[in-house]
This record gives sequence, C-alpha cells and structure tokens, in this order.
Amino acid sequence: METMRALVKTVPGPGAESSITAIPRIGPLEVLIKVELNSICGTDLHIYEWDPWAARRVKPPLIFGHEFAGVVAECGAEVAAIQVGTHVTAETRIVCGRCDQCRNGLGHVCRDHKILGVDRDGAFAEYVAVPAANVWENDPSLPPELAAIQEPFGQAVHAVLAGEIAGQTVAIFGCGPAGLCAAAIAKATGAAAVFAIEVNYYRLGLARRMGADETLDPTAGSVSQQLASLTGGAGVDVVLEMSGHPDSIHAALTAVRNGGRVSLVGTQTRPVTLDLSEQVISKGVTIQGIAGRRMYGSWYQTRAILTSGRVNLTPLLTHRLPIAEFEQAMAIMASGQCGKILLEPWNHRQD
Amino acid sequence: METMRALVKTVPGPGAESSITAIPRIGPLEVLIKVELNSICGTDLHIYEWDPWAARRVKPPLIFGHEFAGVVAECGAEVAAIQVGTHVTAETRIVCGRCDQCRNGLGHVCRDHKILGVDRDGAFAEYVAVPAANVWENDPSLPPELAAIQEPFGQAVHAVLAGEIAGQTVAIFGCGPAGLCAAAIAKATGAAAVFAIEVNYYRLGLARRMGADETLDPTAGSVSQQLASLTGGAGVDVVLEMSGHPDSIHAALTAVRNGGRVSLVGTQTRPVTLDLSEQVISKGVTIQGIAGRRMYGSWYQTRAILTSGRVNLTPLLTHRLPIAEFEQAMAIMASGQCGKILLEPWNHRQD
Amino acid sequence: METMRALVKTVPGPGAESSITAIPRIGPLEVLIKVELNSICGTDLHIYEWDPWAARRVKPPLIFGHEFAGVVAECGAEVAAIQVGTHVTAETRIVCGRCDQCRNGLGHVCRDHKILGVDRDGAFAEYVAVPAANVWENDPSLPPELAAIQEPFGQAVHAVLAGEIAGQTVAIFGCGPAGLCAAAIAKATGAAAVFAIEVNYYRLGLARRMGADETLDPTAGSVSQQLASLTGGAGVDVVLEMSGHPDSIHAALTAVRNGGRVSLVGTQTRPVTLDLSEQVISKGVTIQGIAGRRMYGSWYQTRAILTSGRVNLTPLLTHRLPIAEFEQAMAIMASGQCGKILLEPWNHRQD
Amino acid sequence: METMRALVKTVPGPGAESSITAIPRIGPLEVLIKVELNSICGTDLHIYEWDPWAARRVKPPLIFGHEFAGVVAECGAEVAAIQVGTHVTAETRIVCGRCDQCRNGLGHVCRDHKILGVDRDGAFAEYVAVPAANVWENDPSLPPELAAIQEPFGQAVHAVLAGEIAGQTVAIFGCGPAGLCAAAIAKATGAAAVFAIEVNYYRLGLARRMGADETLDPTAGSVSQQLASLTGGAGVDVVLEMSGHPDSIHAALTAVRNGGRVSLVGTQTRPVTLDLSEQVISKGVTIQGIAGRRMYGSWYQTRAILTSGRVNLTPLLTHRLPIAEFEQAMAIMASGQCGKILLEPWNHRQD
Repeated sequence: METMRALVKTVPGPGAESSITAIPRIGPLEVLIKVELNSICGTDLHIYEWDPWAARRVKPPLIFGHEFAGVVAECGAEVAAIQVGTHVTAETRIVCGRCDQCRNGLGHVCRDHKILGVDRDGAFAEYVAVPAANVWENDPSLPPELAAIQEPFGQAVHAVLAGEIAGQTVAIFGCGPAGLCAAAIAKATGAAAVFAIEVNYYRLGLARRMGADETLDPTAGSVSQQLASLTGGAGVDVVLEMSGHPDSIHAALTAVRNGGRVSLVGTQTRPVTLDLSEQVISKGVTIQGIAGRRMYGSWYQTRAILTSGRVNLTPLLTHRLPIAEFEQAMAIMASGQCGKILLEPWNHRQD
Repeated sequence: METMRALVKTVPGPGAESSITAIPRIGPLEVLIKVELNSICGTDLHIYEWDPWAARRVKPPLIFGHEFAGVVAECGAEVAAIQVGTHVTAETRIVCGRCDQCRNGLGHVCRDHKILGVDRDGAFAEYVAVPAANVWENDPSLPPELAAIQEPFGQAVHAVLAGEIAGQTVAIFGCGPAGLCAAAIAKATGAAAVFAIEVNYYRLGLARRMGADETLDPTAGSVSQQLASLTGGAGVDVVLEMSGHPDSIHAALTAVRNGGRVSLVGTQTRPVTLDLSEQVISKGVTIQGIAGRRMYGSWYQTRAILTSGRVNLTPLLTHRLPIAEFEQAMAIMASGQCGKILLEPWNHRQD
Repeated sequence: METMRALVKTVPGPGAESSITAIPRIGPLEVLIKVELNSICGTDLHIYEWDPWAARRVKPPLIFGHEFAGVVAECGAEVAAIQVGTHVTAETRIVCGRCDQCRNGLGHVCRDHKILGVDRDGAFAEYVAVPAANVWENDPSLPPELAAIQEPFGQAVHAVLAGEIAGQTVAIFGCGPAGLCAAAIAKATGAAAVFAIEVNYYRLGLARRMGADETLDPTAGSVSQQLASLTGGAGVDVVLEMSGHPDSIHAALTAVRNGGRVSLVGTQTRPVTLDLSEQVISKGVTIQGIAGRRMYGSWYQTRAILTSGRVNLTPLLTHRLPIAEFEQAMAIMASGQCGKILLEPWNHRQD
Repeated sequence: METMRALVKTVPGPGAESSITAIPRIGPLEVLIKVELNSICGTDLHIYEWDPWAARRVKPPLIFGHEFAGVVAECGAEVAAIQVGTHVTAETRIVCGRCDQCRNGLGHVCRDHKILGVDRDGAFAEYVAVPAANVWENDPSLPPELAAIQEPFGQAVHAVLAGEIAGQTVAIFGCGPAGLCAAAIAKATGAAAVFAIEVNYYRLGLARRMGADETLDPTAGSVSQQLASLTGGAGVDVVLEMSGHPDSIHAALTAVRNGGRVSLVGTQTRPVTLDLSEQVISKGVTIQGIAGRRMYGSWYQTRAILTSGRVNLTPLLTHRLPIAEFEQAMAIMASGQCGKILLEPWNHRQD
C-alpha cells in the first residue's frame, strides 16, 4: 500500500498532526488528484482550533483542507471524460445528485451533501480523492495560486452575482478573504461604487487595493449614516454581509435602499434580534442566504473573471508557506493580519 | 361649499365620528370619486383602536379607510384619460413619481409616499379625492364587492406571485383576509398544494373553503413537523407569512425547503431573534419583504384572476353592514370571527 | 441470451417490423425498465413514415419510441439510488453531463446529447435501457396512462412556464397533443384566457374540452385580428407556437403585444421570412426556442400539475390500442383525428 | 413672441433648413430646456436624407434631433420637482403613461408613444420642450459631451444588460456608435470577452480602442467559424446585433451557443429568411427585440457606468462641429468614417 503525507485532525481537540497515511483508493466514479498547492479557509481554522461548530460536525480522524490545485493522477473505471495529467481543482460540496435541489439546479443546497475536508478526507495532503463530477478543469496557463483559490473566490462570485450588480452601489461588511474577493468581483462586473466596512485596518488597506472605492471603520461612527451620506441619502443597492458579526445585520438592513438586496454569506456567531416590519417588510427588502457556489455556474463565472484580467488578486495573496509550517500559518490566520494564505505541499518542497 | 358625510378620526384616541364635512376639492391632476362600497382593512382597525402604530403615524383630524369601489364624479383640469362616470377603485399608495424606486418599477416602496386614509383623507366617506395616476378602471360588470377588495386582494397577489408558484407547495401562516386571498390565488395559479396555518378555527374553516388543501392548527403540535410530513420530508417550497406572529417566522424558516422562499407580509408585532446561519444561510433561503402592490403589475394580475372565474370569493365576504354601524363592524373585525367586512355608504342607503 | 419483442425500424424506408430481439444489456450506470404502456409522439410518426428529417437522422436498425411508463427490472452495478420494482418513466434526452450547458442548468440543450428511440434503442419494446440519471420515479398511484405521457406533457410545461403565465392571455397555435396539453397547463397555472388556433375541427373540439376559452380557425379570417379583438386591442401576452406552420409565426408576431413573448415549440417544416424591425425590434418582443424539458424542473412541475387534480387529461387520451396494431395506430396519427394514442405492449396483453 | 434658431425639415424631401422660429410654448406638465450641445443619431441622418422610413413617418415642418444636453429654462405650472437652471437631458420616448405597457414597467414599448424630433419638434434648436416626466437630471460635473450622448449610450446599456453579462462572451455585430458603446459597456460590466464584427476598418479600429478583445471582418472569412474558434467551439454566450444587416442575423444565430441570447437592436433594412427549427428551436436560443431604453432603469445604469470611470468614451467622440455646419456633419455621418458627432448650438457660438 502506497503512502503519503497529510495534515490530520487525529483527536477531537485543538491542533493537527502531519502524518504518513495511505493514499486514498478511488471508486469507479472518482478521480485521484496530486495536490500542487493549497490555501487556507476560515473553516480550516475552525477545525484546527476545534471550535464548537467543529466539535459538533467533524469526526476524527480526518484529513482536512479543501482549497487546492492539482493534477489528475488516476481515474476511476467509469470516468471517461477526464484525462490523467489534467490540471484541476474541485468543487467542495459532494452532492447526492438525486434530491429535489440537485435536480433543480440548486445542488449547492443539496439536502444530502458532504463537504470535502469536513465530512470526508480533504486536500491538506499529497493526494486527494474526489468524485469525477466535482472536478473542474483548469487551463494549464492559469497560475496555481489562482487555481487554488477558485473555490473561495467562487463563493464570493455567487454572492455578488446572486442579483443585479451592474450600475449598483455595493456595501461589503467584512474584509476577510471573502469580502476582499467580493470587492474585486463587484468592481469587475460593473458596480457603481464599492464601500468596504471592516474594523481591521490591515484588511481595510487590502480592500482599497482590491478595488473598494471607500473604506469605512464601523467603530468610527454609524456605518449606516456614512453609507446614506455616500449614496446621497438613497441607501445602498446591494449589501454583502461577509463578516458574520450580528451588528452588521442591523447596519446592513438600515443602509440598504427600499427594494434592495442583502446577501448573507458570513457565518453568524450568534442569533440576532430583528424588527422585520421596519427593517424588511416596509422597505420591501430581499434577504438571501448564500451557501457555497452555484454548481457550476459560479465556476464558469469565476473562470471568466480570473482570465479576463479585470481583477488583480496580488494584494489578496499575502502569505505563502510550506505546509510543514502549518502551525505558523494557522497563527497568522487567527491574527487576522493576512489575506489569503497559500500552502506549498510536501512533495512540492521535495522535488 | 358642498358637504358630505364621512367617518373621521377627530382626536388622537380610540373611536371615530360620523361627521358632516366638506367634499374634497381636487387639484388639476386629481379625480373625485363617489364611493359606492367600502371594505375594512386591519389598518383601519389599528387606527380605530388607536394602537401604538396609529398613535405614531396618524395626525387627526383624518378621514380613514382606503378600500373602496366608486364612480368618477369629477376630473381635474389636467386629467385627460379618465371620464366622469367610469367605475373605478384606487391604488392606496400615493407615490412621488421621481425617486429612484418610482423610476425603476418599485413605486410600491417609494421613498416619499403617502397612504390614502392614513396620511391623507381616505375613503370612509361619500367622496374621496385621489391622484389620477392612482385610479384603476373597473369593468362595469365587475360586482362592487369584488371591485372594493381589489386593493387587499392585490397585496396577496403581490406576495403569491413574488416568485415561482406553479407546481410549488405553499404554506400560508395566518388566515385573516390576506391569507384567505392568498390561498385562493395560489390555487388558481397552479400551486401543487396549499397548507393553511391558523389558530382561529372559524378562519381555518374559511381557508378550506377558499381552496386550502390542508389546514393546520399550530397549537396542536409542531407546524414544521406537520409540514415536513405533508411534503414527504422535502420541506415547503414557498412560505407566505401573513400572521405577523413572531413564532410563525421560526416555523416558516424551519419548514421551508433548502433554496426556498419566505415572503413576509404580516406586520410583526414585536422583534424576533433568528439564527441566520442555521435558518437562512446554510439553507440558501430567500426572505422577501412584501409591501403594498406592484404598481401596476399586481393590479393587472388581480383583474385577470378575478375575471377568470378560477377564484370564488364568496366564503371571504362574510359580513355586509351599513357604514353607520361602523362600531359594530369594528367589533366584528376585532373578534376575528370574520373574513372581509363590506360597508355600504350613507348615500347608498339614502338613495 | 434472453429475447423480447420490439418495434424495429429495420431498413431506411417507410414502415417498421415487430421483431424478436435481445433484451438490452445495461452498463454499470444504467437501468433496465420493463415497459408497461407506450404512447406515440409525432417524432415516432416521422420515423415510421421515414420523412426527410428521419432519413437524415436515424440509423437503422433501431427500436424507436420514447414515451412510456414501466417498472425497474434491473439496476447497473453503480446505481445505488433506484430500486428494482419502482414505477418509473424516463427523460428522453441522454446528456453528456459535462458540457457548459449541462453544468449550467441547460442540460436540455446539451451539445452532445442523444435521444432515446431516435439516436439509440427506445421504448417500443418489452424492455428499454436508460441511464440511471434519466429515470423519473412515479408514485405507484399515478395511472399508467398519465405516467406514460409525462415526457410530452413536460415539454408543454416547459413552453408554458418559460415565462410569466399567471394573469396572462395566451394564444396557442396548433392543437396537436402538445398544444392540447399546453391549453390545460396554461389554465391550471393561472392564465387569464387561453385562445386555441387550429384548422382541424376535431382538435379544436378537444381544445375546448381541455380548457381553451376560445377556439379560432385560421382559415376563417385573420387570426391576429381575431386575437386583437379578443384582447380589447391590447394584443396577446404570450404566444405558444406549437403547429410548426410558417404562417403561424407571422400571425403570432402580429398578435403578440408589445413586450410580449413568443415561445416556439413546433418544428418548422420550412424557412420563414420575417421583418424583424417591424415584428420583433420595435415591439420589444422576446422569441424563445423551446427544446425538450428543463432537467428536471419541468418534470417536477409536471408531477405537481398532474397530481393537483387541476387538469383533466381524459379528452386528450383518445385512443388505446395493442402495440401489435401499430400500423393502424400510425394511420390514426397521420389522419390527425386523434389526441394522444396509447399503445399496450405485447407482454401486457399476454399476461 | 420670442424666436430662436432651429434646424427644420421644412418640406418632404432631402435636406434641412436653418430657420428662425418661435420658441416652444410649454404646457403645465412640460419643461423648456436651453440646448447646450447636440449629437447626431442615425435616425437624424435618415430624416435628413429622407429615406423611405422617414418619408412614411415624418410630417414636415419638423425640428428634428433628439440627442442633447441643456439647462432648464422654464417649468410648467404643475411641475414641482424640477428647478430652473438644472443641467438635464431627456428620454426621447414620450409615453402615454396609461397603457398596459406603461403601467407594467415597459414604457419603452408604450403603445401610444411619440418620439422627440421624429413625431414632435426636437432638439436641433436653441430650445426644446419636453414633458417633465422625461427630464433626466445630470450632475453639473458631468461633461456636456457625455451628458448629450446618454440617450444613445442608454440604448446600448439596455441591450447589453437585457440578460446576464458578467462572465459571458459577447459578439457585437456592427461598430457604429451603438456597437462601440456596447463594447465598452460589456467590458465594464464583466463580459469575459468582447468580439466586434464590422466591415469598416476605421470603426474596427475604434472598437479595439473602446475595449473589444478581438475585431473581425466578416468579408475575410466565416464570422461564425471565427467565433467558434475564439470560444473553443462552445459558441458565443451573447450576440448583440447592432448592424441591421440581414447576413448578420444568420451569423449571429449560428455563432450563439445552445441556450444563448441574441439581442436585436439594429434596424433591419430588409426581411430575412430564417430556419427557425435549426437556428432557434433546437438550440433553445432566445431572441430579444430591443427598443429604446428601460424607463428609467437604463438611465440609472447609464449614469452609474459613465461616472464609474470604467469606460473611456474619448475614442467614440470623433467629431465636433458648429450646428451651422450641419451639412458637413451629415456628410461625415453618411461616410461612416466617424464615431459620434457632436454639434455645438448657435447660441453656444455667439456667447
């Protein structure tokens, strides 16, 4: 049995281990991918730190990680359309394909899905197995660091393009990697203006470099008043809530114009109390829960935007470390003083 | 100066007076309508009872009431397209016509609108003045009791048709007149099944007669479990929240399927605490605030549905009284043992 | 090797043979279905009569037929979600699953699809093999004659619901089975009025029984003038072109209101000459090509409408013959004096 | 009676006269605008040259011209929301406000509209009268040359944004001013790639400067083959037909991908013969007739795009002449060796 190195959550508690483990065996409809580059998601940090959500959801032992780029190493017996050697990444949501959602173009909210690196072994490893249906082929000329971050970029694409965007004013609450991607995407797809809201000044600086027209610190005065002023009293057309902070919801619902939309992406850390009559009904506001990526509409849009040259992700890619230094990488993630962190795999280092 | 009889909120407190007052004088872009039949809205009861919302919003003296049918009695100097003698009713929202919402097909959430019978004199009177732009012409063959209730029926149309409805399962929380109309509309426009939820058994009975396939009492067990069972575990495609009860929001968000929609119509009596991550984001749910009627898309749809013969509103029209007996009418409204209450005007009785 | 009876186009020319042939062997992702009832599509008649389209497209020998209901007899090795004994029918379009269309919710226009009974062996047989992804499970209580016609009914559903329908006036050109289904579907989903246009009086009679509010004979005067009159000069909101007759396109584009939609379903027998400036551009009309069924949105809608009790398909199902009498069945189809023709399979007769 | 200078089509035939005529008297709902800058539309050339369309439609004497920027000089008695001195331009379509289209957000295809400078006196004059509802207020900082061309730019906005555009490949047939604007708009709103098709090399050069990624000469080989090659065989997502050339329709329908859209803008000079089965139905294509601008959604989008700084219209504005030299301006228009031509009014020159 051939082995590989992987980052494994071995026990239900904080931390992870760099272990030697078996290379995954693939089923007839699966593909084995040699990982060439990883990036870290906030979810990975939750698993690493073993927060309450992770403790409820994750069953060790588990190889975690789900953002990656790689090359097809082996195809299952029934996989006809994918060739060994192809540059690929993967959609993280492994869906059932038969529920009402899957059969109606809503696979991203499949009632029976599993998430790579959360519910089954993931991509912080030399090899990862994924269903052929989840494989996304990349142009060989796409730089690996862009290939690796298509999955999180795609969720921001889903959020930004979940309604009209051309000519709209957009407020983005939260400038972590998702919010930073959203700022760039909104500008590239014709937003009239992008307002970025964040308490972390390092990230506010990144937001400006990613294309935000204005950056606002919510601790420096009422965000909704600032947004009203920036829009001549009209209110913001579109709010993207990517912070997960309950206060942002109130500011978002106050700031959005009558008939506008509020797209919720950031996982909320606690319940919020809303006055639906004032904040939603009388304003005719639409609130959207955004989960994952449209399968595979968001991926096509992601490809088009990344290859158009109209977004510059250089400011986003702030750190690049060997995966062996995962503890330091997780510490940087936890500090918030970063954009997206890339991890070079073991095999990459050894070659 | 010619006078008329009207129902006037003369002082800031409960009750109303049947007074003699001047017939309204119309501006060059307005129309004077002789009222032939009224119906009572929940808003009228709020004003009559002088609840906290009314105390904040209404400035006596005010003629209230806004649901009516009538005949054009006089047209302003600049009104070319409307003829005296035409059978009409009116859209209640008097909009500015120049804000971003008005100029983008969202007049129903105009930033500077006034509501007839709330912010300016209304229709519980022998005559009412409305802007020509708000006049809706009726076919003379439309029975006055249907003509009078087009405004509330139209809001239910707006709610039901604010997203896909053909082939969808629909749960309606709250079976007051709005919910009863929604049940009939959903059936007439191809809903797969309509589930009506209400504590008031009188109204549950009306719901069944209006077309609900199943009626559920939320005090008799978990509504969301019952709805899950009725949909084979799939969840409901569309929830229309027309009760205003905070508990309904939780049941609605639990009952709706992944990727489904929840349209909020009923004015919430108090704030609600929501777990947006579990209830909205991870399910990919859309929540819509529904205010008023699409101007005038909802009115066209209302006309088409009323004249198609595919809805039977007889069960809805439970009471018909002379407007002179308004105190009794308001008492019936307050009891909840009614559908829609029609009021015959003074002049109607005297002729 | 086990054998079965099937209707086979053995040579490139008119006619077909009732032959003994091998029961299909299924692949790991396929399902074998025992056929319980067939119905005949216009496409089957084209193949049977060997018209120019069939001569270009079909490669004998071929078992044709694609409308059917049956029971799962065997499942391939990798088919986990379907059980032997389940009542099923199938989507006819066997799609690649990997092209841009398939991955964007447009599988019905897959760039690399094959059609059951046209490009591979079909369902005029005791058994038919289909990919598991194409299997549609039926409630055992659904009558076989309704189960069998879901595929053609679904195309009519696709056409009717390809845009707004509630409250819209609808003109249907052509009252073959597709047009008849469309009339019933439009009524059940809230059309304001349905106008059916057809030269065949037998079918006009069926159209009225299926729910058409008005039936028009295009040889008895200008259809577009009649439609203008029926809509008070406004024009028709939605036109469904299901006749394939070039003259209908002109009448459709004249009859549709400014900003309306024209959905094209009927295969056109020859090119048409259009004045796009007058007929399409200045009127702001939208023309949609409708191919197949939304996969699988149209199937869900079909299920909901068939089980809602709001359509009565009895008038549509005019004939039912043993498949052994296929020559007579095809002659009835060719005569146009029929709605949908059902065929009982050999095995059904022998049991 | 005060007089002004205007460009008048005095007799039904080619040419125009620079005449002294009365300053328009405005009605109570109209506004008088002092013209500060004009631009020329293809329609103006049709009227000037007196082509068959103009001969059918235009009734001399008529002041023509409808693209302009100006300042409000006087307001009618019932005009409350507009101030004298405001920088404005105007929507050209003067709509009835009461037909089904006007009341359903489709004012641009109003059944009873008149066009400024075509059906009533227009803007090639020192002053022009327009209904207050048609006035569009400009930020005083907007350069007059951008203010003047918002009307034609807005039609291109309408065409580009009449469907999904972010991440889509776009082919534009015809690189007159409308096509040039569309190229810039498509890029600014996130098109994956823009392909411009045109026989005039001067205009192909402008297209590249306006943002087209590829420019194609249809006389140098099959356009649809070139487009297939540029999209890896997938076909183009969106085609904007802005040339009016019948051959373009065929190339457009061949080049568009299955399920794609074809938006028709260019007035077709003659009928075209289409094979709807092959070109539209089996491909599931949508064809849209695009007339005018969404009122006023296209105007809001136009404002947002022009002020975003993401389009550079400098290449478009190729000529600027005094209106007194209108004969030369029309000759340049007729030559096709131009983008948009600006005309400075008489009063502008005299100050």
